[in-house]
Amino acid sequence: MDFNVSVEELQTRFTNLKKKYAQLQREKFSLDISRGKPCAEQLDIAMPLLTTINGYEFDKPDYRNYGFMDGIPELKKVFADVFQVSPDNVFLGGCSSLNLMYDVLSKAWCFGVLGGTPWCKLPKVKFICPVPGYDRHFSILEQFGIEMISVPMKDDGPDMDLIEDLVANDIYVKGIFCVPRFSNPTGIVFSDEVVRRLATMKTAAVDFRIFWDNAYCVHALYPDAPALANIFTIPDAVVDRVYMFASTSKITFSSGGTCCMVTSDKNYASLKKMFSIQTINFDKINQLEHALFLKDASNVAAIMEKHAQILRPKFEAVLSVFEQGFAGNKYVSWTKPKGGYFITLTVMNGTAKKVVEMCKRVGLTLTDAGATHPLHIDDLDSTIRIAPSYATLEDIIQACKVLVTVVDFAICEQLLS
Amino acid sequence: MDFNVSVEELQTRFTNLKKKYAQLQREKFSLDISRGKPCAEQLDIAMPLLTTINGYEFDKPDYRNYGFMDGIPELKKVFADVFQVSPDNVFLGGCSSLNLMYDVLSKAWCFGVLGGTPWCKLPKVKFICPVPGYDRHFSILEQFGIEMISVPMKDDGPDMDLIEDLVANDIYVKGIFCVPRFSNPTGIVFSDEVVRRLATMKTAAVDFRIFWDNAYCVHALYPDAPALANIFTIPDAVVDRVYMFASTSKITFSSGGTCCMVTSDKNYASLKKMFSIQTINFDKINQLEHALFLKDASNVAAIMEKHAQILRPKFEAVLSVFEQGFAGNKYVSWTKPKGGYFITLTVMNGTAKKVVEMCKRVGLTLTDAGATHPLHIDDLDSTIRIAPSYATLEDIIQACKVLVTVVDFAICEQLLS
Repeated sequence: MDFNVSVEELQTRFTNLKKKYAQLQREKFSLDISRGKPCAEQLDIAMPLLTTINGYEFDKPDYRNYGFMDGIPELKKVFADVFQVSPDNVFLGGCSSLNLMYDVLSKAWCFGVLGGTPWCKLPKVKFICPVPGYDRHFSILEQFGIEMISVPMKDDGPDMDLIEDLVANDIYVKGIFCVPRFSNPTGIVFSDEVVRRLATMKTAAVDFRIFWDNAYCVHALYPDAPALANIFTIPDAVVDRVYMFASTSKITFSSGGTCCMVTSDKNYASLKKMFSIQTINFDKINQLEHALFLKDASNVAAIMEKHAQILRPKFEAVLSVFEQGFAGNKYVSWTKPKGGYFITLTVMNGTAKKVVEMCKRVGLTLTDAGATHPLHIDDLDSTIRIAPSYATLEDIIQACKVLVTVVDFAICEQLLS
Repeated sequence: MDFNVSVEELQTRFTNLKKKYAQLQREKFSLDISRGKPCAEQLDIAMPLLTTINGYEFDKPDYRNYGFMDGIPELKKVFADVFQVSPDNVFLGGCSSLNLMYDVLSKAWCFGVLGGTPWCKLPKVKFICPVPGYDRHFSILEQFGIEMISVPMKDDGPDMDLIEDLVANDIYVKGIFCVPRFSNPTGIVFSDEVVRRLATMKTAAVDFRIFWDNAYCVHALYPDAPALANIFTIPDAVVDRVYMFASTSKITFSSGGTCCMVTSDKNYASLKKMFSIQTINFDKINQLEHALFLKDASNVAAIMEKHAQILRPKFEAVLSVFEQGFAGNKYVSWTKPKGGYFITLTVMNGTAKKVVEMCKRVGLTLTDAGATHPLHIDDLDSTIRIAPSYATLEDIIQACKVLVTVVDFAICEQLLS
């Protein structure tokens, strides 16, 4: 809908949209495109994982017993193959990479990084937060009372000019959380140049750390999806700067996957020592099941193609409804990711909250407006995260049509006010 | 051996023991009774757990997906049945109760307890440590820089007169770690009176917490093993004082068990909120497998009887070798636990380190002397922890015979010096 029309025409439209919305209210939907959860068909892909261990002969080392705190070699090898790093730098955790990130940050907070002052002893600690971003990263920072500095996300990654400036002079800027491939929620992939600048930039804090949440590392929807540069092989990179995280929550099971961290020799040794106090081992039975099921990078790619076959039509349905519904509408834009779990819809400034609220009232659940921003404050009130993975194709199409109507309604109302 | 003899006789004996030790050195053993690990036969008991999920129909709620941060109802019910508590107070974690304890302590450190000052912001924090105790508890406290106050362990639990005195007036005494049933390493069980005093004593710190590590809750070797009072039903108990922990590391798999925390409504609500920032869920597939395998308290008891059948002969072998080898020896004593994983051997003051070192040189690995004490300092240098679970019966007998010779050697040497 082109809104570049007369006030009279706008009023007519608004009257129509009101009627349409009233009709939606009568229809009583139960639609949900709020959560980045795999659907049941995706989870079915990993069902053989549960039986792959049947008949396995536990011998020496007996993985049923204590030990191997940082994980079993068989699974380290799989992740090393996927990421083209040495297995010696692959630390395996439990079922949640979020938990691993949390633990690493918590250790920096309580005990410091490589002999530095524990962050809890500093007058303040700040983190850079590309926005829009992942709400759970922000929640962790909020829990620790870490100040969040928003930096805009662009098509090729966060605004590096701003970041370089922020980290160069402030010793309290200690880190950044990134989702570098198919970023949550915009779906963009960091360009090689952005990765290079992040890995090599001068930071005032020697213990500045990048939490490289490679959650969607192998989660491409199309073969031509942009690759992510290997941050560990950037020339002149600051060696100990990066903790990379990945998990199989969206490869095998969201409830019982496995996860890893990849980091430098020094970080690894220091964290291994600290983690040894926390646990004797993570779940090695689960690690073994994953090693047997995932096998190697090429098999992981084959598994991910199965996921893509399920997800592609859903993503394409969203884009198709938006293209039709928002044709000629200059107040709305959206991302067209080649992978990951999200599409970001940017609506007219000042209307995102209203849209989410109005959708809720007709039975369509969207991610809360603001969730993509630190402290849930989206200054422009314009970002809406769309998660097309969990719902059925039919529901997604229906949901997006409802969304288009409501967005139009909010624009009309705002233009007329 | 009775050492109440003349110096000449002692010298003759010492000469003989030297020869015997030289002979041991030539035999080159490879024996290990250092680790509280289940043996392979015990781990075999839980093998059906790995296939119990075969054919399970995941429906609604689909436990393969995200959610249920504090665990699935089916497994809460099992633990609730074992501990005779409400399932609403059972928080399920990952595969390690040590990790859960660590997390809870870490949250007190970073964020405080029920709105209290975060412990990291206090000038100091102290914990009471019954000694001898579990080295991994001490390591956690050491990592956080928490001051450890040793309190002697008696036959019915820690010295309560001392503890009541310590907690009554010092606001910085924030907690205590206990293994209340079949304590590590003495194997004693806290008496009802000790449990009552711990639950009801007056503490200067309102956020004083008992880390009730019920690691051996169902790990009896004999039907007449002493029971542990339910600390949650003590009259006039301080309601929010206790975090109880348990795991299946020595019921199912040490590498891939599951664990729980039981605590008051208030603690639960507060910790649930904090843990929600750390992870979306622990491993629910594993929780489900455990629920299907463990079933209920009575089935858990049946499983534990299978463990007892394997462990009993091993414990009895240790006691039998000691009884024979140390007959008449007034410098040596040992505990006779009715359950758990350890026997404590108390040798002549000033000889424990020497004994462990000499055993090592002939190929017998014992737990490091001092490991049972905070900062690895056993002032009397007299405590040796024996772990009979992992080795074969033959090896245990051999190991204990070597140990008897070495202990005698150390006594002779000391008496003659």
